[in-house]
Amino acid sequence: MSVTLEKIVNLCKRRGIIFPGSEIYGGLANTWDYGPLGAELLNNLKALWWKKFVTEREDVVGLSSGVLMNSKVWEASGHLKSFTDPLVECKVCHLRFRADQEEFKKHEHRDFTKPQDFNLMFKTFVGAVEDKAHATYLRPETAQGMFVNFPQIVDTSRVKVPFGIAQIGKSFRNEITAGNFIFRTIEFEIAEIEYFVKPGNDEEAFEQWLSFMQKFLTLELGLKKEHLRLYEHPKKSLAHYSKRTVDIQYQFPWGWDELWGLANRTDFDLGQHEKLSGKSMKYRDPDSNEEYIPYVIEPTGGIERTLLAVLLDSYTEVKGGRTTTTEATKEIEVVLKLSKVLAPVKVAVLPLSKKPELIKVARGIFDELKMHWPCQYDEVASIGRRYRRQDEIGTPYCITVDFESLEDKRVTVRDRDSMKQERIPIADLARHLADKLGDS
Amino acid sequence: MSVTLEKIVNLCKRRGIIFPGSEIYGGLANTWDYGPLGAELLNNLKALWWKKFVTEREDVVGLSSGVLMNSKVWEASGHLKSFTDPLVECKVCHLRFRADQEEFKKHEHRDFTKPQDFNLMFKTFVGAVEDKAHATYLRPETAQGMFVNFPQIVDTSRVKVPFGIAQIGKSFRNEITAGNFIFRTIEFEIAEIEYFVKPGNDEEAFEQWLSFMQKFLTLELGLKKEHLRLYEHPKKSLAHYSKRTVDIQYQFPWGWDELWGLANRTDFDLGQHEKLSGKSMKYRDPDSNEEYIPYVIEPTGGIERTLLAVLLDSYTEVKGGRTTTTEATKEIEVVLKLSKVLAPVKVAVLPLSKKPELIKVARGIFDELKMHWPCQYDEVASIGRRYRRQDEIGTPYCITVDFESLEDKRVTVRDRDSMKQERIPIADLARHLADKLGDS
Repeated sequence: MSVTLEKIVNLCKRRGIIFPGSEIYGGLANTWDYGPLGAELLNNLKALWWKKFVTEREDVVGLSSGVLMNSKVWEASGHLKSFTDPLVECKVCHLRFRADQEEFKKHEHRDFTKPQDFNLMFKTFVGAVEDKAHATYLRPETAQGMFVNFPQIVDTSRVKVPFGIAQIGKSFRNEITAGNFIFRTIEFEIAEIEYFVKPGNDEEAFEQWLSFMQKFLTLELGLKKEHLRLYEHPKKSLAHYSKRTVDIQYQFPWGWDELWGLANRTDFDLGQHEKLSGKSMKYRDPDSNEEYIPYVIEPTGGIERTLLAVLLDSYTEVKGGRTTTTEATKEIEVVLKLSKVLAPVKVAVLPLSKKPELIKVARGIFDELKMHWPCQYDEVASIGRRYRRQDEIGTPYCITVDFESLEDKRVTVRDRDSMKQERIPIADLARHLADKLGDS
Repeated sequence: MSVTLEKIVNLCKRRGIIFPGSEIYGGLANTWDYGPLGAELLNNLKALWWKKFVTEREDVVGLSSGVLMNSKVWEASGHLKSFTDPLVECKVCHLRFRADQEEFKKHEHRDFTKPQDFNLMFKTFVGAVEDKAHATYLRPETAQGMFVNFPQIVDTSRVKVPFGIAQIGKSFRNEITAGNFIFRTIEFEIAEIEYFVKPGNDEEAFEQWLSFMQKFLTLELGLKKEHLRLYEHPKKSLAHYSKRTVDIQYQFPWGWDELWGLANRTDFDLGQHEKLSGKSMKYRDPDSNEEYIPYVIEPTGGIERTLLAVLLDSYTEVKGGRTTTTEATKEIEVVLKLSKVLAPVKVAVLPLSKKPELIKVARGIFDELKMHWPCQYDEVASIGRRYRRQDEIGTPYCITVDFESLEDKRVTVRDRDSMKQERIPIADLARHLADKLGDS
């Protein structure tokens, strides 16, 4: 791939997509803020996931549960005890490193404490007293919200096993060795589903979800098939709750790495919550009256990490330029070939020149279209440069208003990918674009 | 008003809209989880706010910044020092109370410590060491994210003063005396805009935003004008950063209380960040080359609190029933008159009976419509009861498939509010509903 992480980081910074967090204060390690275009990209990605994984599926309902939960939740889930990294501390400079990674062996002092388990959950205190009874944790995953609300949702929402509870929400992990831009951060959004099935039907449901996830990544997000592969976790390295885990890996610039995951969590979590809370987490089949704790299949993926894959996959360089005007240069032009539904700006309106009569028409068009889609109006610089600005952020359609438009009441609609230009009557523009953009 | 908080809490619990957080473990005070319909309501409310306050406005861009920021941010903003409540502790039972509220005077022991300032920000530690250098805080507002990213957004996003940066995001406040259901919670989402203006233009911008906010609350959310009023904060009780603050109050069941707020934050925050970071927070006017720190007008509102007002305002009871079938009862029927764009379910598909030929047609319709909108399919119980179920959650349209449908290929579309029933050809359903539902 010609795309490098550096090129994406630069594009993101230059175009207001992603900035380092708290930058004016020298940052806060592994936090990133999403600027105007980045915020739109996140919104679009989350909305698309929700549409395909929740709205269109009769067997999935949504949830939005708290980041802060009763600390018993983390006792039951095993996170308090087991969600740890082993750390060593340099006795000379007190820097800490993960003992299970090679990096610390290269450290200059090489005089370390013994590895100690370090919990990755951020701790805080609820109420006015900082003692153990008031300690709680920022959730490191959204899954437990689905588990503890399972009985209430079964009681109120007329769902029948098999069914899933979906959530997109902030999660937090106090990771010591994070990095690779937005790939691994201490604060992130997870989109995940806990899909409850009758024990025995779990393996089949696992296969169905694996296929569903792959289809979403390729058909909806537009990731190239050859940049994705499956990684089956060996039995011995499975998490304590898992019967089977498969990662969908993406070919990142630093190599194949986890993009999404699918786990068979069995009845571990619901069983644990039943034990610790004393409340029944069983499901009663309304037809057979059989009672059981369902097995859980969990499709999960980080939103920011998915966005990174999408940016990498849609980044295209055209050497020598592809501008059709006379000012074509020998520069490298960047085109972000985002799917229309993800593009942060759907339509740009560009008067050919700053002549008042063109501006008047262009602004009229812009004022109408922005009621339907995120649009940009741009009259600054040559038309070629303005096309390039829009190509670089993946705007699917540019509308040019020229002097002919004043006569024939038509404008040029340029397609980002085919570069095809069509003359469309101004009166038909909204409908024409609605057809092209679909549900975007 | 006939609606009480209790009725709303019960409806929310019964229909899977809102549950107490961590309920199976006895809860976590002042946290709430949003079930299947609640999650949709939150999504719809946020999407509508974003459309009206960001997408449709040329002068507002979005942002999504971190919950966790460098702690210098809170030093500059004044939160570390001043975002406190004065607390007293009972010397007998060690319960703590807000010293500035009357409640503690009713406490049985009446032997208190002197008031002490208690910071409302949740503290946590980033990295493996729990010391002052690694302490940071969960943001209690999103505003500081907009301030610290102000220079980057000016540099990259071709914005010109006056313009605003908008964000919807989680915020956290360790409030000791919270309550009133979802009105005041320790974790909540704020929708807010920092609108940057040239000093001198701040008072006019303030008036424009006040009017814009009121229009949104009444015209878009459908809140009744007589349930809203303005409260002008007296000069002496203004927050340390504010030149003027007006609350838009809503008539909650417990009395008039803050729904949204509008503040003139002056140049306080940008000025503080410039001082503490050493980075210029000035704006250079591209036409006049004049340099200044902009003033900031801040429209802000809690999403959950807004949802509560919407639920209260749309809750309607019809005594004696309004069902048109023969089974009309003397029960009280509840209709949630939500605006279409907020309704969590847009369309319900109801076969008149469980006859396979009706079910087949109904499911075909459902399978098509759910690709466009959140829909429910329901074949359980009498048609009257099923209408009532949908009325109670505010579904704008119910589609009934009856035996005539098998002959004339038409179905009955029932309007929630007018109760009008129209026969619509099945082939035209999607277009008919698209016209009715608009951008919902």
